[in-house]
Amino acid sequence: MYTEGVKFSEGIEWAIHCVAVLASVPTGGTLSNAALAEFHGVSESYLVKHLKKLVKVGVLESVPGPRGGFRLGRSADRITLYDIVEAIEGKEPMFQCEEIRGRFPGCPHHTPAKPCEIHAAMLKAELEWRKSLQGVTIQDINRQVKLSEERTQAGEVWLKEHLRLPVQ
Amino acid sequence: MYTEGVKFSEGIEWAIHCVAVLASVPTGGTLSNAALAEFHGVSESYLVKHLKKLVKVGVLESVPGPRGGFRLGRSADRITLYDIVEAIEGKEPMFQCEEIRGRFPGCPHHTPAKPCEIHAAMLKAELEWRKSLQGVTIQDINRQVKLSEERTQAGEVWLKEHLRLPVQ
Repeated sequence: MYTEGVKFSEGIEWAIHCVAVLASVPTGGTLSNAALAEFHGVSESYLVKHLKKLVKVGVLESVPGPRGGFRLGRSADRITLYDIVEAIEGKEPMFQCEEIRGRFPGCPHHTPAKPCEIHAAMLKAELEWRKSLQGVTIQDINRQVKLSEERTQAGEVWLKEHLRLPVQ
Repeated sequence: MYTEGVKFSEGIEWAIHCVAVLASVPTGGTLSNAALAEFHGVSESYLVKHLKKLVKVGVLESVPGPRGGFRLGRSADRITLYDIVEAIEGKEPMFQCEEIRGRFPGCPHHTPAKPCEIHAAMLKAELEWRKSLQGVTIQDINRQVKLSEERTQAGEVWLKEHLRLPVQ
């Protein structure tokens, strides 16, 4: 069943913010799902579902064990917003063509070989959306963010308490 | 509650096809909801909901009475795919920012004046999608459609049976 007033899942916002935070931790360090949920004020049990989807596509890596957690699966300049959106929402187009042009009762089952012009135009628009998201990396986002000194210091304190580093 | 794997309602496809068909009928003529539903092989009761949304925004006009029905509210070169999508799905962005950046426990209620960079990038992508749909009119779509002779003739027969013309 389709719903009207199409909206992305809240997981998109959560996932992008988590990847942006993980891109700011020292190399090799990880953050647990609990820490990321606390940082963003979101549900641990929902968040972990989204993080697992990011692991599945290689955007994140999951390090097992008591000092484990999540870290980037590749460098932040190689993770685009679209990689994250696709991991959470899937690859299927938002517009679903049911080929209703072929249902005309005066001439049933007559579907031209050429794709439906309406379908083509709807997919072209989605391509523009995708291209825009593919043009923005997590590195781009983090470079744009300007935090106040107070916020930066508070972030460093928080990170010291929550960062997990591998045993040397 | 958000759902994952975001999809537009089937109403988008139905509505665009109906407007394209109505753009092909002689000026002043109308088609009933029942005729449009039959033409596209879709549910009358669902279709009329979508057609009413198109009337509300002026894409269609509803002519009351036994010889009434639906017709274009303005010329086909002034109806874009986006006009129809917006009428069905509403104006709200697909990406909903919950400002989770402001929830950081180390420094709560600290939301910078500048919009969230992630939010801005997501909205920019939607703008590209919208611009693409705003660039395609129903006239453009109908000019691209090439029907076979058999299909054109069957369409003319069907239209003769279903077209409602105003009493002279």
